[in-house]
Amino acid sequence: MKKILIIGAGLSSSSLIKYLLDRSSEYKWKVLVGDISEELAKKKVNGHVNGLGFMFDVNDASQKERLVQEADIVVSMLPAYMHFTLAQTCVKYGKHMVTASYVSNEIKTLDQEAKQKGVLLLNEIGVDPGIDHMSAMQVIDRIREEGGEINEFESNTGGLVAPKYDNNPWNYKFTWNPRNVILAGQGASQFLHNGKYKYIPYHKLFERTERISISNLGEFEAYANRDSLKYREIYKLQNVDTMFRGTIRRPGYSRAWNVFVQLGATDDSYVYQDSENHTYRQFINSFTQYSATKTVEQKIAEYLKIDPESEIMYKIRWTGIFEDKKIGLKAASPAKILQHLLEQKWAMEPDDKDMIVMQHQFVYTKNNIKKKIYSSMVVYGEDQMHTAMSITVGTPLAIAVKMILTGKINLTGVHMPIIKEIYQPILKELEDFKIKFIEEEVDWVGVESGA
Amino acid sequence: MKKILIIGAGLSSSSLIKYLLDRSSEYKWKVLVGDISEELAKKKVNGHVNGLGFMFDVNDASQKERLVQEADIVVSMLPAYMHFTLAQTCVKYGKHMVTASYVSNEIKTLDQEAKQKGVLLLNEIGVDPGIDHMSAMQVIDRIREEGGEINEFESNTGGLVAPKYDNNPWNYKFTWNPRNVILAGQGASQFLHNGKYKYIPYHKLFERTERISISNLGEFEAYANRDSLKYREIYKLQNVDTMFRGTIRRPGYSRAWNVFVQLGATDDSYVYQDSENHTYRQFINSFTQYSATKTVEQKIAEYLKIDPESEIMYKIRWTGIFEDKKIGLKAASPAKILQHLLEQKWAMEPDDKDMIVMQHQFVYTKNNIKKKIYSSMVVYGEDQMHTAMSITVGTPLAIAVKMILTGKINLTGVHMPIIKEIYQPILKELEDFKIKFIEEEVDWVGVESGA
Repeated sequence: MKKILIIGAGLSSSSLIKYLLDRSSEYKWKVLVGDISEELAKKKVNGHVNGLGFMFDVNDASQKERLVQEADIVVSMLPAYMHFTLAQTCVKYGKHMVTASYVSNEIKTLDQEAKQKGVLLLNEIGVDPGIDHMSAMQVIDRIREEGGEINEFESNTGGLVAPKYDNNPWNYKFTWNPRNVILAGQGASQFLHNGKYKYIPYHKLFERTERISISNLGEFEAYANRDSLKYREIYKLQNVDTMFRGTIRRPGYSRAWNVFVQLGATDDSYVYQDSENHTYRQFINSFTQYSATKTVEQKIAEYLKIDPESEIMYKIRWTGIFEDKKIGLKAASPAKILQHLLEQKWAMEPDDKDMIVMQHQFVYTKNNIKKKIYSSMVVYGEDQMHTAMSITVGTPLAIAVKMILTGKINLTGVHMPIIKEIYQPILKELEDFKIKFIEEEVDWVGVESGA
Repeated sequence: MKKILIIGAGLSSSSLIKYLLDRSSEYKWKVLVGDISEELAKKKVNGHVNGLGFMFDVNDASQKERLVQEADIVVSMLPAYMHFTLAQTCVKYGKHMVTASYVSNEIKTLDQEAKQKGVLLLNEIGVDPGIDHMSAMQVIDRIREEGGEINEFESNTGGLVAPKYDNNPWNYKFTWNPRNVILAGQGASQFLHNGKYKYIPYHKLFERTERISISNLGEFEAYANRDSLKYREIYKLQNVDTMFRGTIRRPGYSRAWNVFVQLGATDDSYVYQDSENHTYRQFINSFTQYSATKTVEQKIAEYLKIDPESEIMYKIRWTGIFEDKKIGLKAASPAKILQHLLEQKWAMEPDDKDMIVMQHQFVYTKNNIKKKIYSSMVVYGEDQMHTAMSITVGTPLAIAVKMILTGKINLTGVHMPIIKEIYQPILKELEDFKIKFIEEEVDWVGVESGA
């Protein structure tokens, strides 16, 4: 039996583990699942005859060495910064490794040695990054093969609550790591628009959204991701005029979120004084000027030049930030305080389901005619364990593991899924899991103004 | 002869070295001046019979050990992050050390050992920090001795061009490190106002200025410094309702500077693409949205909601940022590009003189009567070498060195000049150098609105 070692049994591993266990008898696989929580690892294996859940401590070097040595392939679901030492061990013992994380500069340094050892380090094969790469490259390669040239590329992705369960004024719930949502966009965002480099500082990001529309789902908005420029090289799109990657929210989210950004309430760089005993109202008041006569609500509306009865202010009030309720967190940053409040308001209910929405836009020229393709994917969660996020992250990872173990992928070195021999069979099989893209082609109607 | 070792012969050392050399025969001092540039060190010593200028490399451990061992006292004019290893060497060989920099957490760890060795590590004895501490503590201690209680404390300082040479629309020139001016205020500012903690994020800092007025000099504005709260403990003002420290500019500076902040042009965290070949106009355009029809000037006025013919836009145009002139800097951040432009526009002319402006405001209660004291200092530069900055940084340092060597200060351990036995004689002697505070007392007229 071939041994698959999966490290990390969190939410994103559920669908990965299920896929591999479901096929373990057919392919003669042993699926070993290690997690810092033995209970969680065992729960995910669920007593399957070909599975084993156990306690794994990434800091226990001897356990790590032994397990990697005994495995045929390793899947790391650890936080990204923990991949490197594991990857070193995999290269040392000649074992393939697969992750859903971005290729770090550290991981890149292992390329030569991995090639010498005949080892594949396959990264960025979850959803974003992962499905985004594969589905974009499929269209890009096809247009090129047909003699077209890509002029513009834009890609937006979002994790949201499914429409049926979308019942708060923000049209948003936490379907993934809340901390990442609170800190989203910090730093400057860079992209290319109609041949011009564009930079947006954090405090302007949520004002510069653009509208997008997805068939049968309605309207969304997108704000720019940090670095869109690096994808030019990865996708070999050095000659495009527009290169933009963004995050999808429902319309109105960004302008309301911008209130917290403008006030400074998303700052994670300092400790808010006496956070344990202050109330949320005191907290939000600390970002406004002192006044002996005005309410906090009045001060914020004036400071940020917002209509006090607007939809924006309604969303802010709904969070409970104006309530005189104790925060109760010790030595917390503003970002942590805001996260704590929103975890209570934006929580998924037990029966809620999430969705992943992704849309690429390609403008290309063929025979002197310009066309635009919209390629959109919508995936819904099944239940609390097999969320849309878990399905879309775990399934491509699992298919890649199968292809490597069955000799369908024979690469060595550090890779991401941008070559046809990887993306084509994976996208094909993903359709069995209702993960598919719908394409619409329209005539190109001229320069659009974007973010 | 007693040996005074001065490390660093830059602009801020000029008045320090002159003071010590002028008194070297009387007190029998040898003044040793080391700098990475031997030429600069020799120039500052200017052939004085009791002086010696030489090349000093802070990374040459054996030279450092030898020089410290031979010295009676060490003055470090190095950048703040370099003080620690030098301080360790001073403690090792039982030598006193004096600096104009903030006490770092690292320096604090040396307190016990310094006491055991009978060594004084005296810090924050320049102008800001330095003269600010001493002059504030003198008033605070006096009010307390007279039975008063301090309710509010505010202190603002600025380095500016002297009125006679103040001839550009910003009423500002670089009289000190330009990089610090470009990056000023990044991070969040914290202070206390009428009993409330207040936090201002960077992108709101330059909108939340307050006006101040200095007799015979006219109007100024001040924006908040990063951390005003820590001064409560240092000055033993734990019970004050208002604690604010700020930076002084001429009115209108901050609102115009805010344009660069809002656009993101002061960001030092990433490299602007192709900075060498782009023009300043392309650079500033990169922070605005794409438009096929509008000029950059129009776009900025609309984006930031500024009257295109306003004083603010006039200041921005004056910098040359809209000109199609090549930047010519390789791989530069936005902050570096902006600094490069302004170094050409905000340069001091050879005959220009600078000034340092400082004003404290104290509200106190005595016998149930509330009063307010304004205590203001204005110092003008003498020439290019003895600038107001050099005089106000170097003279208190030099006086402290004299007092330590003549046994007038007998402290050991890590200190700053907040105790009477240090500040009283130093402030007294500073008056001989036209460094003095003018006090005005007025009746307190009620709660003011501040930043």
